[in-house]
Amino acid sequence: MKPSIPKGTRDFSPAEMQRRNYIFETIKSVFLLHGFQQIETPAMENLSVLEGKYGEEGDKLLFRILNSGPVLEQIRNSKSEIRNADVTEKGLRYDLTVPFARYVVQHRNEITFPFKRFQIQQVWRADRPQKGRYREFYQCDADIIGSNSLLNEVELIQIVDKVFTQFKIPVTIKVNNRKILQGIAELYNLKEKFKDFIIVLDKIEKIGLEGVENELKEKGLTQINIRTVLIRQSIARGLKFTDGSDMALSDINNAFQKCESEVGMKGITEVVAIANTVYETTELKNSIEFDISLARGLDYYTGAIIEVKAKDVQIGSVCGGGRYDDLTGIFGLPNVSGVGISFGVDRIYDVMEELKLFDALQTEQSSTEILFVNFGEKEEIFCLKLVTELRSAGIAAELYPDRDKIKKQMSYANDRKIPFVALVGEEEMKSGKVKLKDMNSGEEKLVGKEQIAEMIGKK
Amino acid sequence: MKPSIPKGTRDFSPAEMQRRNYIFETIKSVFLLHGFQQIETPAMENLSVLEGKYGEEGDKLLFRILNSGPVLEQIRNSKSEIRNADVTEKGLRYDLTVPFARYVVQHRNEITFPFKRFQIQQVWRADRPQKGRYREFYQCDADIIGSNSLLNEVELIQIVDKVFTQFKIPVTIKVNNRKILQGIAELYNLKEKFKDFIIVLDKIEKIGLEGVENELKEKGLTQINIRTVLIRQSIARGLKFTDGSDMALSDINNAFQKCESEVGMKGITEVVAIANTVYETTELKNSIEFDISLARGLDYYTGAIIEVKAKDVQIGSVCGGGRYDDLTGIFGLPNVSGVGISFGVDRIYDVMEELKLFDALQTEQSSTEILFVNFGEKEEIFCLKLVTELRSAGIAAELYPDRDKIKKQMSYANDRKIPFVALVGEEEMKSGKVKLKDMNSGEEKLVGKEQIAEMIGKK
Repeated sequence: MKPSIPKGTRDFSPAEMQRRNYIFETIKSVFLLHGFQQIETPAMENLSVLEGKYGEEGDKLLFRILNSGPVLEQIRNSKSEIRNADVTEKGLRYDLTVPFARYVVQHRNEITFPFKRFQIQQVWRADRPQKGRYREFYQCDADIIGSNSLLNEVELIQIVDKVFTQFKIPVTIKVNNRKILQGIAELYNLKEKFKDFIIVLDKIEKIGLEGVENELKEKGLTQINIRTVLIRQSIARGLKFTDGSDMALSDINNAFQKCESEVGMKGITEVVAIANTVYETTELKNSIEFDISLARGLDYYTGAIIEVKAKDVQIGSVCGGGRYDDLTGIFGLPNVSGVGISFGVDRIYDVMEELKLFDALQTEQSSTEILFVNFGEKEEIFCLKLVTELRSAGIAAELYPDRDKIKKQMSYANDRKIPFVALVGEEEMKSGKVKLKDMNSGEEKLVGKEQIAEMIGKK
Repeated sequence: MKPSIPKGTRDFSPAEMQRRNYIFETIKSVFLLHGFQQIETPAMENLSVLEGKYGEEGDKLLFRILNSGPVLEQIRNSKSEIRNADVTEKGLRYDLTVPFARYVVQHRNEITFPFKRFQIQQVWRADRPQKGRYREFYQCDADIIGSNSLLNEVELIQIVDKVFTQFKIPVTIKVNNRKILQGIAELYNLKEKFKDFIIVLDKIEKIGLEGVENELKEKGLTQINIRTVLIRQSIARGLKFTDGSDMALSDINNAFQKCESEVGMKGITEVVAIANTVYETTELKNSIEFDISLARGLDYYTGAIIEVKAKDVQIGSVCGGGRYDDLTGIFGLPNVSGVGISFGVDRIYDVMEELKLFDALQTEQSSTEILFVNFGEKEEIFCLKLVTELRSAGIAAELYPDRDKIKKQMSYANDRKIPFVALVGEEEMKSGKVKLKDMNSGEEKLVGKEQIAEMIGKK
């Protein structure tokens, strides 16, 4: 029997963990620098919390947990109709935003608003696995809830810019606003079909312009002349937010004015205000780009939407987010606006690997600084005392546990990339010295035990 | 609708997260000091990996995941017998040891043995929730696999001692050996009922001596005179491993010699050897205690077993582990011995809280060092520039995003325990100064913006 793991899931080796931890720690440090506080929520949520929040497609992708007890027997013996709740009442977290909204409502009396929280946890989706798409993956989210100020959008863009600058990944920060998309829906008299419109538009990168046109037709959205919209886009695309100027989004704005789409005009105002404040206060290392075809799939966005693309690697977005005006309303707490972003650690990892950005980070190096070779019973005790002393001084040290051949022990040190090896045989024990081998240079030196820390560069 | 979370699960607030992170980081740093390497495995494993590894009881406590797709519909429409695999093929991790064994077998060609790995992840058990017992909780495990040396057991005891010393939690490190329990089973001619014996003995703290006697009877284990065994225990209990002496476990050893129980004698030898090496090489801060009634519930232990109890708090064990000689054998890789320990973070948290050990750690303090009050549109931009500069200098800073009343903003700083507040109104902007308030002393000072870092103690 060859053991395996469920498809779409992964094991992470020590080398991968070092790189992943570097990514997590970097993002976490930026979140803390901006005053976000960490929370965690359970992996399982009640299905009543999860269902209906991610669209029809999302509901299908929820991992459901079988109720405890002899459920299968009950199903087999049941004469009457089996209700869903008899079989499953809990599901695995699909994202971090909905559980966060649930958290906010449930703990509203303990929370100081505006609440800036971050959360680094796994999510699960029963999606078809493919390159870069997993059934279990981590999200790193930062959200501000309980504040309408656009300064929050500004802060999130600053965070995005800072994180990817630290990673040395050049990115484009794409922005749009759901209010602009609402305006377009008004332009075409399609307000009640807004959700369908968003879902189709969201696929533009996957299925192309023609695909979008076909799907719009299928959904009966024939009124929308998507080519006209995209001509506006191509105009807007030319207007990269490179200098914080007013960007002459006037073409779209004029259309909104003509049809008196308040919401559309509000969207334009917001996009411009956010970009202006960013440019006025921050030296961005990456560029912001307005993209009217940016829709984002999730139902709950109502304002600014952000998506971040790596410039030099063909891969989906590496970060995304937006404003949601009434996510907590579903749970009984209306009129609380929130805005957040989510970093996709797995894609960031893939991008860093492709751009060979890990090489400079020395994530390969072992955390163990010195290995003591095991020569036998007496030497063992002698060495273990030394190892214990070194550890007390904060130096990560190991004694090889078995009395294996020296060659095997040396190759262990080599494979583990441990920089120093100590060899203590009978002679060394007598003289109270330690033979220290620098594994990089191959140099060997006889040193007093009190010199070890110094020799390996720890004093 | 009031949202809630599944019973036995928990949300963790920012304050709790700070304390929990302190516990995780402390344990992790000791693991790294001892040369352990981190891995992660998926939350879900195939049921074939999980089932049959935790005893009958354990199988019942597995959380099973409903297969994807329209499973419920299929069940309803199915005319034929529903097989388990039609409904569920995956389950949530029950502990970290079995997934680790699976990992080792699956990745054996990439691993350098002996493999010292640590893993800090959640596990799920469909147990009846009660105080200190959750359905979702973290385990922090360190295991060495591919080495028979008792030096590994020595190292794990050192780690336990170090971790609890850092936490300032006085503990007793209880040890026993499954081989001694096997010897006792041989003593009573009960070799084939060994598993039952272990399961019953493991309950001694919960159900007491009489309870154990009754259950032994129920299982047909009437031959075992548990009182006689426990007299030996009480003798052994007197022989605390306080000085590394030979401990005169002779009473039990004699009994093993009489019935020629090789395994029993081997167990005694191991217990003595481990204790002697610990005492010879390490100044322990906590005491080791031999406890012949220590059984540990899991099927796979074959050698040393360890359980750690807090001295001053009535709570289950805070750490436990042992040696398993053939856990990877189940997955097709025989003759690979492993030994490990697992720290129970939730109980450690409860103990630290009860002993008020968090108070001295200042985990309450916000990570944000300074909050800029928001006085309005112009001030916003002025302050955001300063905030951005401070963050570039590595100082965690926030600008309050909304133009709320000053009182509300000050109470935000207060609730968040942010030590400094900067007030910049029209006058301050004109003079290029910042009014800095020390939230602890209440003192206010007008300072130049380049002095802020210095004032808040960051230069």
